[in-house]
Amino acid sequence: MTKLKWGMIGGGEGSQIGPAHRLGAQADGRFEFAAGALDHRAEEGRAYGQRLGIAADRAYGDWTEMLAGERNRTDRVDLVTVATPNATHFEITKAFLEAGFNVLCEKPMTMDVEQGEEIVRIAKASGKICAVNYCYSAYPMIRQARAMVRAGEIGKIRLVVTNFSHGHHGDAGDAGDANNPRVRWRYDPAMAGVSGQFADCGIHALHMAGFICDDTVEKLSADFASTIPSRVLEDDAMVNFRMTGGTVGRLWTSSVAIGRQHGFDIQVFGETGGLRWASEQPNQLIYTPVGGRTQIIEKGEGGLHPDAQRLSRVSIAHPEGFPLAVANIYCDLADAINGEARDGLPLAPDGLRSMAAVYAAVESAKADGAWVDARPPMFR
Amino acid sequence: MTKLKWGMIGGGEGSQIGPAHRLGAQADGRFEFAAGALDHRAEEGRAYGQRLGIAADRAYGDWTEMLAGERNRTDRVDLVTVATPNATHFEITKAFLEAGFNVLCEKPMTMDVEQGEEIVRIAKASGKICAVNYCYSAYPMIRQARAMVRAGEIGKIRLVVTNFSHGHHGDAGDAGDANNPRVRWRYDPAMAGVSGQFADCGIHALHMAGFICDDTVEKLSADFASTIPSRVLEDDAMVNFRMTGGTVGRLWTSSVAIGRQHGFDIQVFGETGGLRWASEQPNQLIYTPVGGRTQIIEKGEGGLHPDAQRLSRVSIAHPEGFPLAVANIYCDLADAINGEARDGLPLAPDGLRSMAAVYAAVESAKADGAWVDARPPMFR
Amino acid sequence: MTKLKWGMIGGGEGSQIGPAHRLGAQADGRFEFAAGALDHRAEEGRAYGQRLGIAADRAYGDWTEMLAGERNRTDRVDLVTVATPNATHFEITKAFLEAGFNVLCEKPMTMDVEQGEEIVRIAKASGKICAVNYCYSAYPMIRQARAMVRAGEIGKIRLVVTNFSHGHHGDAGDAGDANNPRVRWRYDPAMAGVSGQFADCGIHALHMAGFICDDTVEKLSADFASTIPSRVLEDDAMVNFRMTGGTVGRLWTSSVAIGRQHGFDIQVFGETGGLRWASEQPNQLIYTPVGGRTQIIEKGEGGLHPDAQRLSRVSIAHPEGFPLAVANIYCDLADAINGEARDGLPLAPDGLRSMAAVYAAVESAKADGAWVDARPPMFR
Amino acid sequence: MTKLKWGMIGGGEGSQIGPAHRLGAQADGRFEFAAGALDHRAEEGRAYGQRLGIAADRAYGDWTEMLAGERNRTDRVDLVTVATPNATHFEITKAFLEAGFNVLCEKPMTMDVEQGEEIVRIAKASGKICAVNYCYSAYPMIRQARAMVRAGEIGKIRLVVTNFSHGHHGDAGDAGDANNPRVRWRYDPAMAGVSGQFADCGIHALHMAGFICDDTVEKLSADFASTIPSRVLEDDAMVNFRMTGGTVGRLWTSSVAIGRQHGFDIQVFGETGGLRWASEQPNQLIYTPVGGRTQIIEKGEGGLHPDAQRLSRVSIAHPEGFPLAVANIYCDLADAINGEARDGLPLAPDGLRSMAAVYAAVESAKADGAWVDARPPMFR
Repeated sequence: MTKLKWGMIGGGEGSQIGPAHRLGAQADGRFEFAAGALDHRAEEGRAYGQRLGIAADRAYGDWTEMLAGERNRTDRVDLVTVATPNATHFEITKAFLEAGFNVLCEKPMTMDVEQGEEIVRIAKASGKICAVNYCYSAYPMIRQARAMVRAGEIGKIRLVVTNFSHGHHGDAGDAGDANNPRVRWRYDPAMAGVSGQFADCGIHALHMAGFICDDTVEKLSADFASTIPSRVLEDDAMVNFRMTGGTVGRLWTSSVAIGRQHGFDIQVFGETGGLRWASEQPNQLIYTPVGGRTQIIEKGEGGLHPDAQRLSRVSIAHPEGFPLAVANIYCDLADAINGEARDGLPLAPDGLRSMAAVYAAVESAKADGAWVDARPPMFR
Repeated sequence: MTKLKWGMIGGGEGSQIGPAHRLGAQADGRFEFAAGALDHRAEEGRAYGQRLGIAADRAYGDWTEMLAGERNRTDRVDLVTVATPNATHFEITKAFLEAGFNVLCEKPMTMDVEQGEEIVRIAKASGKICAVNYCYSAYPMIRQARAMVRAGEIGKIRLVVTNFSHGHHGDAGDAGDANNPRVRWRYDPAMAGVSGQFADCGIHALHMAGFICDDTVEKLSADFASTIPSRVLEDDAMVNFRMTGGTVGRLWTSSVAIGRQHGFDIQVFGETGGLRWASEQPNQLIYTPVGGRTQIIEKGEGGLHPDAQRLSRVSIAHPEGFPLAVANIYCDLADAINGEARDGLPLAPDGLRSMAAVYAAVESAKADGAWVDARPPMFR
Repeated sequence: MTKLKWGMIGGGEGSQIGPAHRLGAQADGRFEFAAGALDHRAEEGRAYGQRLGIAADRAYGDWTEMLAGERNRTDRVDLVTVATPNATHFEITKAFLEAGFNVLCEKPMTMDVEQGEEIVRIAKASGKICAVNYCYSAYPMIRQARAMVRAGEIGKIRLVVTNFSHGHHGDAGDAGDANNPRVRWRYDPAMAGVSGQFADCGIHALHMAGFICDDTVEKLSADFASTIPSRVLEDDAMVNFRMTGGTVGRLWTSSVAIGRQHGFDIQVFGETGGLRWASEQPNQLIYTPVGGRTQIIEKGEGGLHPDAQRLSRVSIAHPEGFPLAVANIYCDLADAINGEARDGLPLAPDGLRSMAAVYAAVESAKADGAWVDARPPMFR
Repeated sequence: MTKLKWGMIGGGEGSQIGPAHRLGAQADGRFEFAAGALDHRAEEGRAYGQRLGIAADRAYGDWTEMLAGERNRTDRVDLVTVATPNATHFEITKAFLEAGFNVLCEKPMTMDVEQGEEIVRIAKASGKICAVNYCYSAYPMIRQARAMVRAGEIGKIRLVVTNFSHGHHGDAGDAGDANNPRVRWRYDPAMAGVSGQFADCGIHALHMAGFICDDTVEKLSADFASTIPSRVLEDDAMVNFRMTGGTVGRLWTSSVAIGRQHGFDIQVFGETGGLRWASEQPNQLIYTPVGGRTQIIEKGEGGLHPDAQRLSRVSIAHPEGFPLAVANIYCDLADAINGEARDGLPLAPDGLRSMAAVYAAVESAKADGAWVDARPPMFR
């Protein structure tokens, strides 16, 4: 096995998401960290890249320099991760796809639906992989849940309920404090776009609902609130939705739920059983057959569906966490680059559907919860 | 202390709610079970009452007989519990209030808003107590939560999120099975009225939100679903609401959440902290101050607010459960009958507000989630 | 059904255990609280008894007065609960048994083995019931566990592991503070006897092990520690034991486990499965068949063993707690008094076995953990 | 930062521990997987090493070949991981230390105390690092616990209680099945040495107790049981111990606890507080100050002790698991190799102390629980 070559744009020193990508890409030894444009400050980015082991000539000052440098190499990177500020995802992803690179883009893939449709078209035309980092879907127990649904083990899905709530933006001081860009920008339309918390966390939950149910969102109704009044964008949202197959959906997301650390969970209820999972205990999947007792399915137990088994790394009940979920995305990418299809990989159409849902939710919220078509035009 | 005399209407042999009332009324030895009309089958009711220790002349065949028998006694019952089928609550409660009895009515207090307003007026005119059995609000940790909110310990409330979900009606066979009246009637408008799951469980959660936040619901938007298609009434509902004080509310209730046993929980998020409680672990209240660590408040610990301390019966961490929450309602009633005001007691206005919310939710659900005034006309 | 008449000795105002007995005896309406000698201060006891509804002539000043008063009545109490300081249990229990009363004695039944054997002999000779309040064994899920073991559902028992740890005596100030008798007396041989924490809490756990395994302790080895040096008696103990049937046992008990509130739990491991239960979540029993998934057995679910089903009072997942476990003891007593045998009732031989185990543990601890026969002489 | 070069002996295809080491060594990109002798079958090991990206000339057939190959290279590996069968650890570790390599040895470091003392002497003389993979001690929350103890935040430690129980060897068929070497060898003295479950899992718990308490075990008393009779070595053990500083210790370990998946937990009780941690939820540390409320300390929260903060990789409440604990060991090793002392690294003296404790426990168990000095002779 030759190692694949990997490059990252963004994820500089002190970034929140950078470490997760580096752990994820390197953990299995399938990618070599070969190139990067890690920081919007060119010199800091070059220096940091070299400290992380990138050769000097591939530690670039910005993404355009990286694109220019890599496109002409015979040993060009096999995969580019885009982990820059949201508003730049579209432009960078587009450019690298067009230059024939495989891309893993952080969410949100784009800032609007039109951009999303363009990426889908470009990705298709390029023949390259354009993945989007809905990494929670790569937890083994989520793959197990999806496989159980597909195998009909809980029957036709009636209802899916998912939450992504935390309280880390619950301090109003943050919002008004011009010196605290960590939080403030997320509620400023100039930087965050049309949606705050729903676009930040809610779309993870919405993607997960579609992923497990193996279905897509058709329409939705949203109630947005800025519970900290100085915020222009919502810090709390409730979205009701319907999937194409008729499943009823409920999604709550909040950033002011003080005391909730990482309250991302999902419950799927079918005609013959229910499944539950929570991201703070990701190695268990709770299953109840109708009329029967609740059972605990453990990561690594015997008899899991193959996709779940394949992504369990260490023995049963030795917990695996978020960085390994990201590593699973990279594993699937390595396989896919090597020609082995991995149908669990979230791709450009998933990124597009998320953006369509964000715009639909914003429109609905403005219209007092009117039901809005949540499908991208190209998929209607 | 002289024991008070207690009578019950309904709650016959095999009923679900009867045992909870008997445990609740008798546990503290403050009420003597003196009279009853326990069953719609007169002879069975008389026999069962006597087996439970009621004197033969006070083991009545129906409620009219009981009213006639008790109203003329000098040792008439001090409190009548109404635990009959929902559609009869109004008539019986009205009759006993008008005859000068204190009443504890099971929820829902009435089947519509007009009846609810009538009960409020009658109760006020009578000078008697008309309580409604929102017994979850009598858990010590719920009293603690309310006292903390009132004392400003979590600041102004921004958001309240509550769920009451279970999966005990998740077997579609139940719904269609003419031989299984246990479940079927709940989704039949002829028996259950305008709402199924929301009127059955949702109003407990809605009452709790108002109780802890010390506020009332102003308007709401509802999404109802009959996930089992044979059901006319909803078996799953999402209700967004706004309280008079501006608090944002979210309420999910379901009876098809297979695997959830008694998924009633509430989370209250204020400017300076958050509180969480779940009915399956009722003896703990989870508290997080903004910027601080999550703490576990235990029933019976030192320094609780007086109303919580008063209703803790046994030592810290010796669990107390649902029957003792009901017993707490009866304790408060005994105190109130003896002239000691208990402001935690849920009363007729609470029952009325619930019914107004039910009708508002039904109206909203029919209008695709339009926002509807949820206040009873008399409180607007 | 005629109500039985009940009397209590001890359990005066402010006592810890009194409320549990009153709730337990009265909750089901099967006992009338007819007599009492509630306080060692005669007048306070009489007054408190009357405030609790006892007639003036049966609110006694002390237990001898109560014995004299009750023995000659035709409507004498059917059951006497002994909830006085430990050192008086033997004398009072003996006297009431000899006078032909049924007795429920708080644990420990006696202060030594000889007294225990005497009570067993007296109880047998009297034909009366002498129960001991190992009330945890009356939780429905413990009855379920025992029934499963008896039915062979987890095979021959290899191992039982039980803990009863809390931290409520973890403040050394308590121990040395002459003004704080709440804790200090428990570690003073003059008041507590030969053992502190093991005799106080450990014997609950040891009884439970025998109860669920349907077996008795044969020999044991103990390690005692006074982790707060001013204490003469142990505040922490580990006891290894072997049951007659060969089961290996492990029991840890502590009162200095700061942060543990009520850490009483038990795990039973057999050839074909394992069971787990914890007193802070008493309504669930965790079951794992060998090679299979862990399942959650819920109080009140369909298909429980009859003894568990009978003692489930309210619907599934409506939690029932400690006071109802005590109530279950009283239910079994009422049945037994009425002639319906209840083999789950802990009786004088159980109290005797506990005391033999306490003395064996003390002897072993003094002998550096030497193995000691834990059987009472009369049962060898 | 130049990458360090890493080699592994053992951990071949299908091994349980190999993946954890590869994930751990590579995740942070600080080690390049440069050499290996991965399998006792030379060709399989060479082929597997090359599939994992090792150059052909450094994919060795056995450890002697690797030693010969690496010792003469100028780019020799900076660290050798020994993950071979237990009985070979001593010989290989000794050889590589003597040749001037840094070594990370899997536990147990040796098969007896004399070998352990020899490794300690050799490591000291060599000036090289000889670490032992007590990787649980590298969880951030364990580092936090140790730092809190050292800072006196829970006062002098009175008591430490730790368990490492699972049920994965609970199927007796495994033990007797000659075709199932997965489990059988662990209870066979010819392969496992003098102890089964205690040497396999118990020593992790014993190391953890010493690590958090910052103390060492002085003496112990053990009760061993072979609950599956065909087993020569114990599958269940209880060990009571005393630490040099006077702390009382209790340790239970089992492999027949059917239903326990990875029941490794530890509780530390001091004069002014208690701490609790469980390996299945490794990202939380539960802290209770005496007289105060239980608090949840979260990995990644603000204000952690520096050693805990340093080893938190991703944001608060994004779970990190076992592979990242191993990665933390490798991070500390990389730092230590680069000259930055990491006092949390478990080293040869820890491996020696474990072996001394194993022999002491075996001796004690044979002597019916007599107390035995657990210190290695060289540390007495």
